[in-house]
Order: sequence, then structure tokens, then C-alpha cells
Amino acid sequence: MTAPSAPTLEQRLACWPKLQQQRARYDNITLAALFAADKQRVSDCCIEAAGLRLDYSKHFIDTQTRDVLLQLAEQAALPAAINALLHGDKVNNTEKRAALHTALRSTNSPLHGQEIADVLTRMEGVVAAIHNGSWRGFSGEKISDIVNIGIGGSDLGPQMATHALNDFNTQNVRLHFVSNVDPSCLQEILAHLNPARTLFIVASKSFTTLETLLNAEAAKHWILAATNSEQAQTAISKHFVAISTAVQKAQAFGIDAANILPIWDWVGGRYSLWSAIGLPIALAVGMRNFRQMLAGAAAMDEHFATAPLVQNMPVIMGLLGVWYRHFWGAHSHAVLPYDHYLRYFPDYLQQLDMESNGKSVSREGLTLPYSSGPIIWGSVGTNGQHSFHQLLHQGTHFIPADFILTLHGRTKNTERHCHLLANGLAQSQALMCGKTLEQAENELRQQGVSETEITSLAPHKTIPGNRPSSIISLDALTPFTLGALAALYEHKVYVQSVLWNINPFDQWGVELGKQLSMPIFHELNGAPTINGNMQDASTTALIVRYQQLSKPGKA
Amino acid sequence: MTAPSAPTLEQRLACWPKLQQQRARYDNITLAALFAADKQRVSDCCIEAAGLRLDYSKHFIDTQTRDVLLQLAEQAALPAAINALLHGDKVNNTEKRAALHTALRSTNSPLHGQEIADVLTRMEGVVAAIHNGSWRGFSGEKISDIVNIGIGGSDLGPQMATHALNDFNTQNVRLHFVSNVDPSCLQEILAHLNPARTLFIVASKSFTTLETLLNAEAAKHWILAATNSEQAQTAISKHFVAISTAVQKAQAFGIDAANILPIWDWVGGRYSLWSAIGLPIALAVGMRNFRQMLAGAAAMDEHFATAPLVQNMPVIMGLLGVWYRHFWGAHSHAVLPYDHYLRYFPDYLQQLDMESNGKSVSREGLTLPYSSGPIIWGSVGTNGQHSFHQLLHQGTHFIPADFILTLHGRTKNTERHCHLLANGLAQSQALMCGKTLEQAENELRQQGVSETEITSLAPHKTIPGNRPSSIISLDALTPFTLGALAALYEHKVYVQSVLWNINPFDQWGVELGKQLSMPIFHELNGAPTINGNMQDASTTALIVRYQQLSKPGKA
Repeated sequence: MTAPSAPTLEQRLACWPKLQQQRARYDNITLAALFAADKQRVSDCCIEAAGLRLDYSKHFIDTQTRDVLLQLAEQAALPAAINALLHGDKVNNTEKRAALHTALRSTNSPLHGQEIADVLTRMEGVVAAIHNGSWRGFSGEKISDIVNIGIGGSDLGPQMATHALNDFNTQNVRLHFVSNVDPSCLQEILAHLNPARTLFIVASKSFTTLETLLNAEAAKHWILAATNSEQAQTAISKHFVAISTAVQKAQAFGIDAANILPIWDWVGGRYSLWSAIGLPIALAVGMRNFRQMLAGAAAMDEHFATAPLVQNMPVIMGLLGVWYRHFWGAHSHAVLPYDHYLRYFPDYLQQLDMESNGKSVSREGLTLPYSSGPIIWGSVGTNGQHSFHQLLHQGTHFIPADFILTLHGRTKNTERHCHLLANGLAQSQALMCGKTLEQAENELRQQGVSETEITSLAPHKTIPGNRPSSIISLDALTPFTLGALAALYEHKVYVQSVLWNINPFDQWGVELGKQLSMPIFHELNGAPTINGNMQDASTTALIVRYQQLSKPGKA
Repeated sequence: MTAPSAPTLEQRLACWPKLQQQRARYDNITLAALFAADKQRVSDCCIEAAGLRLDYSKHFIDTQTRDVLLQLAEQAALPAAINALLHGDKVNNTEKRAALHTALRSTNSPLHGQEIADVLTRMEGVVAAIHNGSWRGFSGEKISDIVNIGIGGSDLGPQMATHALNDFNTQNVRLHFVSNVDPSCLQEILAHLNPARTLFIVASKSFTTLETLLNAEAAKHWILAATNSEQAQTAISKHFVAISTAVQKAQAFGIDAANILPIWDWVGGRYSLWSAIGLPIALAVGMRNFRQMLAGAAAMDEHFATAPLVQNMPVIMGLLGVWYRHFWGAHSHAVLPYDHYLRYFPDYLQQLDMESNGKSVSREGLTLPYSSGPIIWGSVGTNGQHSFHQLLHQGTHFIPADFILTLHGRTKNTERHCHLLANGLAQSQALMCGKTLEQAENELRQQGVSETEITSLAPHKTIPGNRPSSIISLDALTPFTLGALAALYEHKVYVQSVLWNINPFDQWGVELGKQLSMPIFHELNGAPTINGNMQDASTTALIVRYQQLSKPGKA
């Protein structure tokens, strides 16, 4: 029923047993003890690159363990794999193509450099026309609102970056994002917009994505309904831009060839915010800032390509994840940005990481006998502290966490910004230190609580501690550092895929649901069963219920 | 260092070994086989209550297994625990109080019934004054925008419900939610508002929550800065409402006694949307709809109290979670609402579930020798399908999922709504059925792919299947069904807490981070170390870096 088994990690990577020995060393060592044992620990566990600083000192790692992890990376041929990625080898082996998101941000790539530069120039043209007001809608008005219609990578990256760079949006243009096929999603946004001043970007690599096409059709009707018959002639060309490889399909929709920006099959959806898919970002913050974002990512690429493994930020982050996944029972990884503007970053990372490494077969198609990508989850601090952090501190899981901190505040209000930072740092510290039973008892005693009470209450206030976390800090959140941050995680994901020997650039698992949905759609609409497809009894029961509800008179 | 160990689940619950036997039965049974074996499966695995329908037929359960799980519930004294909760026993044993969120939605509760009714009447007064325009701001204008300042339970529940009931907001009042201490959070919202027409709700049980108080202070300055000296006299009383137990503190802030709505210590933050904390919901949709939400929750309470365990929706959901947590290696649980208006529901559930059951000690304060609450995560469909669903289908985790479907569409656009439903149903089906290697091979063969290609590609298209999911369907998303849905999950969480013998109503784990943050805050501000508190070297290094960045001239 399934493919034969791939070699185990132990069979493939000779130093695996050494990691088992390393794990045993930590049975009776606390994180605090690691600090006590080494005064240089922080500087030894700090990497700076591309405007980012990674502090991984609050992890179960020391020189010895790190050496073994680096051996592991060598045995997995990570350096060659990094080269292969950056030099355009067909690392996406199941789809027989390269994954060239790094070329998109290189100023002088030998790989498709001219095509990339040409598209940036075309993006520049669109951005300039909107910003200088020469782009006019059907009634001659300037564009004030831009609605990006896209889903997955055509939504999460642009949305994340547009929000993150809110301070750099000095144009009088508002950006909106529509993704869900649920008609409420588009409707909620259009309710507040004026068709005469609204531009739609239809972002779909194939121009066949169901959600995007249906929303684009609805948007087209909305525009046309606002026009007179003369305006209607040219309204679509004035209010729609497409980003797609399928020029003909976009033209068939009615979009002007001049307004169709290309992407390429060597850019995966979740790696596409650096391409024309990033147009909403550029419209929000201008091309100069968009290019700065590319430059930050390129600086991280350069670091990834050239830094020795021991000083290589994505490599260390990737290795720590593998270490915890297999030797510490970590099933998930929390991402906790302490910056309101980074509130969409966890959603973006969920796709980037889980769609890439949520795989069960090796590159060769053999069934993995080991676990692969973790669950990525989290949310913005300090909000999470008043929600799920309880479980991080006192739950029964071992969950490594990334704290992302922006040191320089954006406003003059340093008090609240300082509290934000202090809370992020304190959470990381609390995860590490915990609170012993004795400490809890002493605290209660100092509060004058009775000994009976202390005995019953102190265990509830005890916190195990020794839960590891990284601190990734940005001196400031700028287009450059945002680009570096996103590229950092892209490469971390790639490092882990190499260790697990999986292809992070395909996503075959999403096909089945699409296949199954069409017959269900037709049956919901009362069509006879297509192709003799028989639904399971559970699905059938709900189809019947839906049909009963939809009968005339049942509103 | 830690408290002694609590009894194991096996020691406490005599039928535990029977579950081990049950688990073994499924080693060679697929979910599809369970359907084939029992034509009545769907009706047997369906529960309807309070306007909701739970279909749990796509789970590893049959009559035999369910019987053992129900025995387990009896052995854990679940019926008595349900009674204790609903009758106001001090189920929150570490804080020595009842958890009376169910009383809040009872129309005739013997427990605090009069107080509850009085507060609803006061809420009604506020809502009426805003809606009929008799409430005026400092310059005599009507209120058009309401900003709720609160965090955790004072934010997530009201925000979730306000968005969910968007269609019922027929008033000309917009609701906004500010939670994060990051000044960008408040600033982003105030940038678009007119102080003369803005009302703030300061929601903090203790009126000491750091984030809320700092944001409220900033809001106060913003209002006062817009007034002349005469207007300033009464501006705070005209623009601020508080929801708090701490009347004096709210008054000291400047809020009129008449504008302070009480809550009580027997309502936990994450269970408080039914109290005056729900005022933003009532302001959005009116008191009649708010009372409908309470009625829906009360209907679920009645079901929870009276339905036999085998027909009891929260009980079955809770038991399935325990079954998977301990016998199937499920560490997390995915929540996937297929409704744009329910997009904040996963965030709300994260707090409800993880803050309640993220515990490591028993009610008696003994260290749990078993795992407790899972990680709750997910997001709105269809968006997730273009993101992390890849991992649900082809990753190496076993992740039970809840699909939440709204059958009746809100708009006349039945096409997109039908696609939404079809996709939700198809995802659930795909998780169950998967795709075998043979199916993948045959599909490729039909597409005319060469045999060599088929051999290399088919394993990548294989999907293991046999991943369980529930479908929770609402005929329509209304105040009543939303209330029932939230209450369903509250009770599911409670059921699991009883099985694990933990107190779901405290949250001691959140205290430590707060304690540690104050000294760090002062050090960031350059104050000498408080109380001789020495930070770890990692924290110190970042404090130093922050101070260097903040020096004059380093902007």
C-alpha cells in the first residue's frame, strides 16, 4: 500500500548515535547550569548577520553537542545542498526544476537575471503610475485602494510584509487582501470601497486557483456594475492587474497584456513574495523599499552561502530543530514575535515551514521511518502571554520557541515599547528558569500565607523550567531586516529538509482534497453523482441536510 | 524540587487497560472499514443539540470502544463533576471558588441570579444610549466608534464573537479591539478615529492589567488632547466605560461610577464573554442578540447537564481527545472553521483550551505522570488548504481535526458558499481516505505518464489517510448557535480536565513572566538593578544592546 522504507537517520548519518550520547549528558544539567559553566556562553552562542542577531544560548547545546550536530550536517552533505540550491540545481526533484527564490533577490544573478530585472522594471512602472496618479479608473479618478486577490503564497507573504512595513507606507494607498472562497471575505472588504478608485491584483501562478478565480469574477462584476456602457469597455483593463505564468488565461479574463506581470515555475508559491507576487508590498511601501527588502534577503543568502556552518544562522536554527525533534520529543515549535507589526508572521511561517517539510517520503520516494517537520504555531506577544503561554510554562509539552524582538521602538512612547521588550525577555527567562517548589513555598511564606495553605498551593505555582528558546533580535524593523528575517526562515526550513532528505519544494498532499471537492460541490448543487463517485455516508448525510435547508421556503 | 507524583491514569481509572486492548483492535482497521462494517454508523455517531450537529463517524471508535470510554468517564466521576460545575461548587479549588460562567447565561439561576440580571439591565442601558444616540461625547456628538481595551479573555472572546456576528451588526457603530502593549497596536486604530465620537471600554477584572492600563492611559491622553479646558472636565466620564471588579481603581482613573460595570471573581477571564466583558458584542449586535447568544450557551449547558453521556456532545468530544492523546500519540488538535466570520475562533480556543488544561499537577498538587492538554491550532478554511494542510495530509503527525461548517450561506452567492462547504467536506474525506500507492500509480497511468515516471512520482502522491476528524455543523451562524458553539468547547475542555484530574480554572503559570519583567523593564530604562536581581547573561546582553541603541544620536 505504501512505498518501501527509507534508511533510518541512524543508517544514513553515522554520527547519529553520538547525538544519543549527547542527549544523555543533559539528563541532570539545567540550562542555568550551562550559563554558570561558561562565562563566554552568550558571545559563543550569538550570530549576527544581515541586520539580525540570533542568541541561542538558552538551548541545550554546548561546544561538544554543537560539534556533533555540525558533523551531522556534514554527513547529510548540507554544504553541497546549499550550493545546489543557490546555483540553480534541480533541487525540486519531483517537479524537475530549480527553486530560485534566491535569484529573485540577487542584484546580478547569472540565473534568469535579465528576466528578473525586467519584471522589477515593470513593477516599478505600475507602482509609479499608481503613486503619481497617472493610473486612472474608469471614471478618471485616481486609485486609492488596492485589493490583492490570492491565496496561500499569493496572500500570506504579501500580507505579512505589507503589515510589517506599515511605517514605510507613506503613500495614500490602502492595501486589502482577499483570499477565502467564502463570499463574506470579499464582501466585507468591498463594502467600504469605491469601485471607481479600486484596483484589483489577481495573483495566481496558474490562473486556475479556484478561490482566486471566483473572487476575481465577483470583483469584475462589482466593477462593471458601477460603470456605464462606455466605461465598461475599458474598465477591466483599468482596474485589474494579473500576476501569473498563464498570460492567455489572464487575457481571456479581460486583463490587458500590459497589466500581466509574469512569474515563473521555478518560484514556489510560498517563496514568491520576492517576485511580482510582492507587488502589493511595493505598492504599499514603494519600489525603493521593496528593493531594500530584496537586499536584506540577499544579505541573508550571502551569509547562508558563505558563513562557516558553526557561524551560520539558518544552519544552527535548523540543527537545533532536528536535535529537539528527535531527541527531546518536540513535536511543535512556537514562534512569538513581540511586535504588533509582525502579527501575521506566524501565519506566513506556518505555510513556509509546514507545506515544505510536512512530508512522509524521502526525495527518492521511500517512506520515512522517522518524523519530519514540526507543527509551527504561535502569535504576537504580549497577547500570547494572556492566552496559551500558560501551557508553554506549565503544560506537559516540550516546546522550543523563537522570540522575535524589535529593539528600536517606532514611536516616542518608549515606556510601552520597553514593557513589550521586557515581557519578551522575561518570558524567555521564565521558560528557562522556571520556579522550584522551594521558591514557590518561600514566596508564599513571605506573603504571610499559612503553612497549610503553602503546602496545598505551592505545587500549583511550581514551573518546571528548562524549556529552551531563541531570541532573534532586529535593531529595527525595516524592509532590509524583514527581508533578512523571512530569508532566514526559508533557509532554516531548507536545512531541515536536507537533514530529513525530503523535497521541501513540492506539495502533492494538497491535490487530493481539490479532486474530492468537485463531485461534492456538484452534489451539493443537486447534480446527479458525477463519474459514479459515491461519497462516504458521513458526507452524504451532510449533503442531504444542506439540500433540505436550501429548499425554497427554508431561508 | 517538584511535588511527588500523582497516581497514573492506569492506577486511577480501572478500565484504562481495556483502552489499551481497544487500541490494538485498530491496528489493521481503516476508517473506511468502520463505515463498511456498519450502515448505521453515521446516525449512531451523530449528536444534535442546541442548534449544532456533531458527526464523529470519521473517528477510530465503535460501540465497543465508546463503551469503554464511557466507563472511563464514569470511573473519573464525570457526572458528579458536571453537577459540581453547574451547581456552583468550588471547582476552582486552588482559588477556592466556583466557576459560574454557566450561571451568567441561565435565565433563572439560583446562583447570583439577581446580580447577573442587574448587570444585564445596566448593559442594556449603555447599549440603548449608544444606539439611540442619547450618549454624547465631549463636543455633543454621537458615538460612532468603540474601542475595547483588554487582553486575554477581555479581548479574544468579545473579538471572536463580534466578528462572527458581523451580519447582525445593523447599528451604525464600529467596534475595534486593542490588546497589545506595543504602542503600534493602539496607534494604528486611533489614526483613523475621531476622539469626539469614540468611546473606550477598559476591560480588566483587576484594573491592574499592565497592557490594558497603559493603553487606557494613552487613550485618555488622546481624548483630553482633543478637548478644550471646559470639555476636559467631563470628557473621561463621556468617553470611558470600565468593566472591572475594582470599582475604586476605575474611579481613580477618572471613570464615572455609573459607567463601571461589575464582574465577579467567580468568572474566569477566558469564560467571561457572557458577562459585562461581552459589552462590545452587545454594542455591535444589540442586547436582543446578545441574550440570544446567552440562550444558545444555556441550551448547550442544559444538554451537558441532562443528556446521557453517550449522547452528550462535549463528553464525546472530550473523550475522543483523551483517547487520541494517550493511545494515538496526538499532541495537538486542529480547529478548522470553514467560515470567514469564524476566523478568530481558533485564537479564542487557544486560550480557552491551553490556558485551562496546560497544567502539570493534579488538583491535589501532585506532579502528573501523564500528559495533559494538547496544542490547539488551526485557521479558517479554505485558506489553510493552501498552507499547512499539506502537513495534515502528508506529514508524520497524527492530528485529529474539527471541521466547523456553516450550512446556510449568508449571501445569495451560493456558488462560492457551496465551494466552501465542498472543500471542508472534501478535506475531511481526504484525511480519512488518503490515496494508496496503487491509486496514485493508476492516476498517473491514466494521464499517460511513462512507467519510469510513475515509479518515481507515485510515492510522493501517496497519502496515508486514516486521520480522524469531526464535523461540527451549524445550520446557520446566529447568536444562538455561536453561543452554543463556544459553550460546547468550554465543556469539552472541562470534561478533559476531569479525566486528567486537573483544575482548569486557574493559571498560575502566567505569574512568573510578569514578576520577571519588571526588573528587566527598569534595567532597560537604565535603572540600577532592583532588589539585587541579576539577569542571566543572555538577557543582560540584550539590555546593554538596547541601551546602546537608545543613546542620543542613535535613532
